[in-house]
Amino acid sequence: MSELLPNYAAGRWQTAGDAGTPLVDPVLGTELVRVSNTGLDLGEAFSFAREQGGAALRALTYRQRAALLGEVVKVLQAKRDAYYEIATANSGTTKKDSAVDIDGGIFTLGQYARWGDSLGDARVLLDGEPARLGKDPAFQSQHVLAPTRGVALFINAFNFPSWGLWEKAGPALLSGVPVIVKPATATAWLTQRMVADVVEAGILPAGALSVICGSSRGLMDQLQPFDVVSFTGSAETGAVIRSHPAVAERSVRCNIEADSLNSALLLPDAAPGTEAFDLLVAEVVREMTVKSGQKCTAIRRVFVPRAFYEAAADAISAKLRKTTVGNPRNDAVRMGSLVSREQLDAVRAGLAFLREQAEVLHDGGAQPLVDADPAIAACIGPTLLGARDPHAADRVHRFEVFGPASTLMPYDSLDEACALIRRGDGSLVSSVYGTDAQAIADAALALADSHGRVHAISPEVAALNTGHGNVMPMSLHGGPGRAGGGEELGGLRALNFYHRRCAVQASTAALGRLAANGTHPAR
Amino acid sequence: MSELLPNYAAGRWQTAGDAGTPLVDPVLGTELVRVSNTGLDLGEAFSFAREQGGAALRALTYRQRAALLGEVVKVLQAKRDAYYEIATANSGTTKKDSAVDIDGGIFTLGQYARWGDSLGDARVLLDGEPARLGKDPAFQSQHVLAPTRGVALFINAFNFPSWGLWEKAGPALLSGVPVIVKPATATAWLTQRMVADVVEAGILPAGALSVICGSSRGLMDQLQPFDVVSFTGSAETGAVIRSHPAVAERSVRCNIEADSLNSALLLPDAAPGTEAFDLLVAEVVREMTVKSGQKCTAIRRVFVPRAFYEAAADAISAKLRKTTVGNPRNDAVRMGSLVSREQLDAVRAGLAFLREQAEVLHDGGAQPLVDADPAIAACIGPTLLGARDPHAADRVHRFEVFGPASTLMPYDSLDEACALIRRGDGSLVSSVYGTDAQAIADAALALADSHGRVHAISPEVAALNTGHGNVMPMSLHGGPGRAGGGEELGGLRALNFYHRRCAVQASTAALGRLAANGTHPAR
Repeated sequence: MSELLPNYAAGRWQTAGDAGTPLVDPVLGTELVRVSNTGLDLGEAFSFAREQGGAALRALTYRQRAALLGEVVKVLQAKRDAYYEIATANSGTTKKDSAVDIDGGIFTLGQYARWGDSLGDARVLLDGEPARLGKDPAFQSQHVLAPTRGVALFINAFNFPSWGLWEKAGPALLSGVPVIVKPATATAWLTQRMVADVVEAGILPAGALSVICGSSRGLMDQLQPFDVVSFTGSAETGAVIRSHPAVAERSVRCNIEADSLNSALLLPDAAPGTEAFDLLVAEVVREMTVKSGQKCTAIRRVFVPRAFYEAAADAISAKLRKTTVGNPRNDAVRMGSLVSREQLDAVRAGLAFLREQAEVLHDGGAQPLVDADPAIAACIGPTLLGARDPHAADRVHRFEVFGPASTLMPYDSLDEACALIRRGDGSLVSSVYGTDAQAIADAALALADSHGRVHAISPEVAALNTGHGNVMPMSLHGGPGRAGGGEELGGLRALNFYHRRCAVQASTAALGRLAANGTHPAR
Repeated sequence: MSELLPNYAAGRWQTAGDAGTPLVDPVLGTELVRVSNTGLDLGEAFSFAREQGGAALRALTYRQRAALLGEVVKVLQAKRDAYYEIATANSGTTKKDSAVDIDGGIFTLGQYARWGDSLGDARVLLDGEPARLGKDPAFQSQHVLAPTRGVALFINAFNFPSWGLWEKAGPALLSGVPVIVKPATATAWLTQRMVADVVEAGILPAGALSVICGSSRGLMDQLQPFDVVSFTGSAETGAVIRSHPAVAERSVRCNIEADSLNSALLLPDAAPGTEAFDLLVAEVVREMTVKSGQKCTAIRRVFVPRAFYEAAADAISAKLRKTTVGNPRNDAVRMGSLVSREQLDAVRAGLAFLREQAEVLHDGGAQPLVDADPAIAACIGPTLLGARDPHAADRVHRFEVFGPASTLMPYDSLDEACALIRRGDGSLVSSVYGTDAQAIADAALALADSHGRVHAISPEVAALNTGHGNVMPMSLHGGPGRAGGGEELGGLRALNFYHRRCAVQASTAALGRLAANGTHPAR
């Protein structure tokens, strides 16, 4: 049997008493390690983090905590090679795809170290300026954001074992809030290893960072009113979390990032042959194939003017045909595997479900694999579907195939296109391709209320394009409705989730003393 | 039978088909009017508001919508006398107490009219400045707040039929979001009348403001992903709302303001005989008696240094003894009735429950009533309890008697006092009384994370004191944990709930075009 990974909780390594659940190489089918938290004292784990970790972190200033994040970055950077090895083995990703998770996570943490340093030696964030409560300026109201006196529980998704930890832990730790991370079992290894390296380096105070692998059973029961929980994953599990008594009755603050049907929109001026057209085609292909389409931000729906439908179908399909799929250890492979055979089955079933309402423009389902056994490897080529009547094809607006798949649709008017995009009932991101600045601004404004991010690419910024699906720490990550209603990142806005807003009504003299402990976060 | 009040929904007055539920004068016991929504087509009501009302409001700018609010203020001001008559009859409140609800609501709406005007003719709010996504300044991220494309459902509490409507409707309508209000049945009359007056004046676009009286059954089922719901009331109902599929599955944004165990804290320098001591005593008495203690912000727990316990008990009791209770139509009466006999029974039962862990310092339970029949009127005098061992008396930290009642407790150290206050598991407001600016700032900072508001009174601002329980629109209203986790008011911060934050990543040229439609809200 493979190694049973220990959990780090209550300030010590703890190994479960049972055999645990094996983690598997999705390309080779071999067992890698095992995880379990059976027998772990969750009550002790949470109260240790809340009391020891919280008190130690709150005793520091923002700048001091930012310096700790900077030290963590150094540790992670020094161990990158080991992380790439784990990612290849456990996630089946190519080196380029592993980088999105590993280097993306380290980059994001580094950003919070820098931004945190800019907050200086403050202990509370000032929210706006004092406001008079009457005509006399001697009695005023000053809003502050104070770090919450609880733990942050992260229940994370399988597709970003590194980035998913650090994009949340950066803002939490900077806020003075201890973290308990429960990685998705399928890829828990990388998360556990990164936490182990940070623990070994002795950077963070005891209780500041814990990792509990295996089942999530019982974790929510531990949450108390000043704790917060952040979940990334399916809408079904999100609904269970939101209905849990911790959230429903104890008002535990809850951030959910769930499946969404993200879209790309080609504006009418971006005809075939224009650079804007080519930019959309390249981005759709990239989004379909990066991490085998296993990104919550991936483009699932592509809207183009009806006259450009055939040209778009041809151009995207031509590029997809060149995508080599298989063992990521082979340098000829551009797209690795899905996370598991179960995920492969789900993708196949999902494609069959959508095909009942869509035509197949490019079928990657039977594509030969490079250096991988199709009976074992969780690999599948990319598939482009098409729905010439996007109003009738309701499934493509509500059902997500979490793999290398997308659906092309034609539109007749921009208003119609925006209405069709909104049929996703809220998404993480929509990207817009065109040349005219006013048309781009108008589309962004029309889509802003139903998306956490609108990504607009015109030829003059093509070289600067950070990518539709790439989550930059400067920009909000989250989305309304189906996307879960959460908000992450967005620069120092991310700290809001870990702080409580309070209006202090007091004499202007007392507010001056209060402000001496605070700082205004830059926006 | 009394008049059956019609509902205003889908742009027309609609009267239910059944007899409805009677509303009663809580002092005289007489029936006033009746309410029901039996047979109302809720689907039509919500889609009319969402589509007609939403589109019409979004077609206006913030300044134009603010002007509408200003017109509504004028209508309400012109009808004040009628509102006071309804309040006396239906809420049993003295004129002074009715003012808190009626004039407080109109004042708050007027503030949003003024603040909204300052936003100018914009259609979207800009959130911060553009941030570079790399070194090149040509591609940036600009966060915006865009009005949500849905309806705002308000499920309101009985104690503020006017203020509870307008403090929410002001920010919602200013944001371009149509409102459907479901007032608490016991006091629905005033809400219904105010909406009727506004409808008759023809100020707002069709679908912008609807009122549905009676049962809340089926209302939540109507909510779709871009809608929002705001609830004020019991924690039990709050939990039901938060667990409803609309919230749990469709991510409908939800704001809850629930019961909380608010506190007052006397600092060690505020000995008996000082002005700060007298300020606490006056405020506790005011909070216990205004609206017969039926305020979600009322002081339920009073913490004083152990050496001052007896003096505080004596001083508060002495003032309570002078409080005349009974029929608010009699000018000699300082405190009117509770909202109903059911509420009276609940207060009596709650007091009995707390008394098992507390001593009675002043018993108003048997106080003779002025001009009211104790067999009919829902009147009861104020009761001050005391718990000399506040650690053992767990009930006073978690069980709220929603009436003229409070519990005095001694503390030995400030850290202990703050820990005891936090045993409320999150409250709307805590007030602090003392003279030293630094001590006040320190206490405010210690209490900020577990409260939506800290209200600090020192002698030099005594004359400017806006009141512990008085909710000023400039300051946040809400609180973590037991208080429901919501955020209302706080100046233009209130608009956040009705807007969706979105990061627009685009060329700096396109962001410039976008910004031409927007404005930065002042903080």
